[in-house]
Amino acid sequence: MQTQNIFVNGARLKATIEAFADFGRTPANGVTRLCFSEEDIKVRNYFRSCCEELGMTVKVDDMGCMYATLEGTEDKPPIVMGSHLDTVVKGGRFDGVLGVITGLEVVRTLVDHGIKPRIPVTVMNFTNEEGARFEPSMMASGVLSGKFDKEVMLKSKDPEGVTFGEALKASGYEGEIENRIKEASAYLELHIEQGPVLEKEELSIGLVDCVVGMVCYEIEVTGESNHAGTTPMGMRNDAFFAATDLVAELRSKLGELDSELVYTMGRVNVYPNIHTVIPNKVVFTVEARHKNEEVIAEVVSIINSLPETQTGCSVTKKKLWGRDTVWFDEKVRGAIESSVKSLGYSHKVMASGAGHDAQFVASYLPSAMIFVPSVKGKSHCEEELTSYEDCEKGVNVMLETVLTLLGDSGE
Amino acid sequence: MQTQNIFVNGARLKATIEAFADFGRTPANGVTRLCFSEEDIKVRNYFRSCCEELGMTVKVDDMGCMYATLEGTEDKPPIVMGSHLDTVVKGGRFDGVLGVITGLEVVRTLVDHGIKPRIPVTVMNFTNEEGARFEPSMMASGVLSGKFDKEVMLKSKDPEGVTFGEALKASGYEGEIENRIKEASAYLELHIEQGPVLEKEELSIGLVDCVVGMVCYEIEVTGESNHAGTTPMGMRNDAFFAATDLVAELRSKLGELDSELVYTMGRVNVYPNIHTVIPNKVVFTVEARHKNEEVIAEVVSIINSLPETQTGCSVTKKKLWGRDTVWFDEKVRGAIESSVKSLGYSHKVMASGAGHDAQFVASYLPSAMIFVPSVKGKSHCEEELTSYEDCEKGVNVMLETVLTLLGDSGE
Repeated sequence: MQTQNIFVNGARLKATIEAFADFGRTPANGVTRLCFSEEDIKVRNYFRSCCEELGMTVKVDDMGCMYATLEGTEDKPPIVMGSHLDTVVKGGRFDGVLGVITGLEVVRTLVDHGIKPRIPVTVMNFTNEEGARFEPSMMASGVLSGKFDKEVMLKSKDPEGVTFGEALKASGYEGEIENRIKEASAYLELHIEQGPVLEKEELSIGLVDCVVGMVCYEIEVTGESNHAGTTPMGMRNDAFFAATDLVAELRSKLGELDSELVYTMGRVNVYPNIHTVIPNKVVFTVEARHKNEEVIAEVVSIINSLPETQTGCSVTKKKLWGRDTVWFDEKVRGAIESSVKSLGYSHKVMASGAGHDAQFVASYLPSAMIFVPSVKGKSHCEEELTSYEDCEKGVNVMLETVLTLLGDSGE
Repeated sequence: MQTQNIFVNGARLKATIEAFADFGRTPANGVTRLCFSEEDIKVRNYFRSCCEELGMTVKVDDMGCMYATLEGTEDKPPIVMGSHLDTVVKGGRFDGVLGVITGLEVVRTLVDHGIKPRIPVTVMNFTNEEGARFEPSMMASGVLSGKFDKEVMLKSKDPEGVTFGEALKASGYEGEIENRIKEASAYLELHIEQGPVLEKEELSIGLVDCVVGMVCYEIEVTGESNHAGTTPMGMRNDAFFAATDLVAELRSKLGELDSELVYTMGRVNVYPNIHTVIPNKVVFTVEARHKNEEVIAEVVSIINSLPETQTGCSVTKKKLWGRDTVWFDEKVRGAIESSVKSLGYSHKVMASGAGHDAQFVASYLPSAMIFVPSVKGKSHCEEELTSYEDCEKGVNVMLETVLTLLGDSGE
C-alpha cells in the first residue's frame, strides 16, 4: 500500500547543522571537537536540550553514550538512529554529527505531524568514535558490542596523559551501565560517504550493504647504511631502493586483483633519513580492503610471497591487524531500499570502506547504514562538505525508513 | 737517487691512537668529541702538550685552528700535515684524528732520527670539520679559504642555542687572525677512506687525485590525501605511488651513466604518513657524485627531464646545492706517489667521494690527500676501523713524502 510521503524541514535541518557546527567551529569553517573536550561537553548539553524540548527522555550509559527516546505506544525494543558528535582535529561539519542530527530531525518531523510512534524511537550519540583524543576509534560501540575491554579503554591516555576514564568522570557524562542499549528493532546510521563515488556517479543515496574487511601489514626492509659519496653502487645494500622494488611488485600484483580492491602504502619511514647516507632501513605499511574474504586472502598471499631478500636487503612482513567484512541486516536494508525507491531518489548499493559504530553494533542489533555524497570525497578535514540538499534527501530517506519500520502505525 | 727508507714507530703510533681515543671514548669503543666540547678541549690540550714536548711551537688562529710547528733551518713556507680532532656523535677513533696523529708521529720520527728539517714542518688541527655541533661542516677551512663568511659562522648555533662564537671564546682556543695559515710548500692530509674500495681490492694506500663534484636535488611530489578505505584506485592521486615511479625512472637512467657515478635518495618524507590515508606529498633528495663535470651535467639533465606530472600528481625539482670537483696539486701528488712506490705498498689512484678540509685548502695551497682502508667502508660510527698495520703504512707514506718534499735535506 503506497502512502503519501511526509518530508523533513530542510531549512530547519540546515540551521541545525550550522548550530551544531558552532561547537568547535574553526576559522576555516571546519570543526574541532575532541571527545570530552569543552566543545564536546557543550554540544552534548545542546543535543540533550534539543531532545528534551521534544519531550524525549535522555539517558546516559557508563561509557558516556547518550540515548534520547521518544516514547512509543507499545513497550517494545526501539528503533535507534545514531552516530557520534566527536570529530578529529580540524575535521568537518558533517562526519558523525549528521547522523545524530538526522535522528533529531526525524523526531522533530514526527512531532510536527503529531505522529506518536508505535514503538520507541531513540536517537543516540556514541562516545569517542573518532579515537582522535583517546585511541582506539569506535571505542564505546566496541565496548558495548564486547569487542573492546572497558577496563583497558578507561586507561587509554590522550597526549597530555589524561585517561579516558578521568575525562569521562570529569565530563559529567558518566551514566549507568544498565542504560546501555541491549536490544533494538533496528539500528540505523546515516553518514557521509567519505569517498568520491556517489558524487562522481551523480547519485544521492548510498545503500550500504557492508563495511568491508581489511588487512594491514608492515613490511620492514633492512640494508646497510654507508656514506653516499664513498660507496660504489655495486657495493650497496640500499634499503630504499629495495623497498621501491617491493612496492612496484606489490602494485603490479595487487592491481591484477578485483577492481573494487583498494590498497594503500600510507606510512613510509626511511632511516636514518639523511641525504648523504645510504638508507639502512625502510618500514612501510600495506593496507588493503575488499568485501570478499577470498580477495583479502589473495592480498595476504601476495604480501607473504614477497622475497625474503631484495637487492642485498632482508625483508620481513608482519600482520598489524585485520577485520572481517560486516554484512548489514537484510530486513533493515530492505526497509531503506523501499524508502529510497518510494522517494524516487537516485541511489546505489555500495560497501563502506571506512569503519563506523554500526559495524560493531551490527554484531548484536539488526543494523544498516545510509550514505550521502561527500564533495570530492573529502572527510576528516575542514573542506568536508555535503550539500544541504543531499543532507535533506538523506534525512528524508531516514524518516521514510523509520515510518516503514513503524509499519505506518503512528497514532 | 734511492735512499734508505726510515720508518715510523708502529707501537707508539698505536698507543697514540688509543691515547687520543680516550678523550670521549664511548662504551662501544667509538668516540664522541663534538667541537669545543669538554672532550675536544681536553684533546686539544693533550695535542698541544705532545707537540711542545717535541720542541714545537703551537699557535692558534681566530677560528681556533691549531698549528704546531717544528722549526726549519730555512725560513720558508712550511710543509703542513693536518686534519681535525672533532668527531660526530658516536663516531670512530680514526676519522680526522688519524691525520693529526700522522703529523705528530712524522715529527716524532724526525726528532727520533735527529733530522732537522730544511723548511718548517707544521701539524694542524682544523676546527669543526664535522659540523656535527655547529653547521656547516668544514667550517674553519671554509673560512680560511674564503668560502664561508666568518661573521655568519660565529652565529651558527648548536641544538642548545649556544653560538659557535660563544663556544670558541669559552674554549680558550680563540687565537689571532694573523696566525692563520697563508702559505705552505704543501698541505698533506691523511684520512681514512670511509668507503669499501681499498679493502675490497686488498690495497693499502689510496692516492687521492680529487674530491668529486656533486649535486643534490630535492624532488617534491604533490597528490591528494583521501581516505584509504573509501577512494577507488582509479580516483586516487597517490603521491607515494607517483614518487616510486619517479625513483624507478631515475634509477634506470642514472644506472646507464658512468659506472663510477654514485647516487643516493637518502632523505624521503611521506605525508601525512598515516596508514589509513593516501599520501598527498612525498619529498625526497637525489644526490649524485662524480669527478667529471660532464657526468654531473647528465645527471642534472635526467633530473630536469622528469615529467611535471606523474599519475595525477605534480612534480617539482629544486637544486639544493652542488660543488665542483676539486683536483689536487700534481707536484704534491707526485711526491706521494713516488713515496708509495719507494715503500712498495700496494696502492691505487682514486677519488674522494667525501668532503675534507683539504678540498678547501686546495684552493690556495698546493694540496693532496692519502687514504688508508676502512674496514667494511664504515665511518661516522663506533664500528669505524682501520687496522694498525694500515695506519702505520699510511704514516710511513706521509713520512716518506715529507722527506721527499724536504729534498732529503735533513741535516
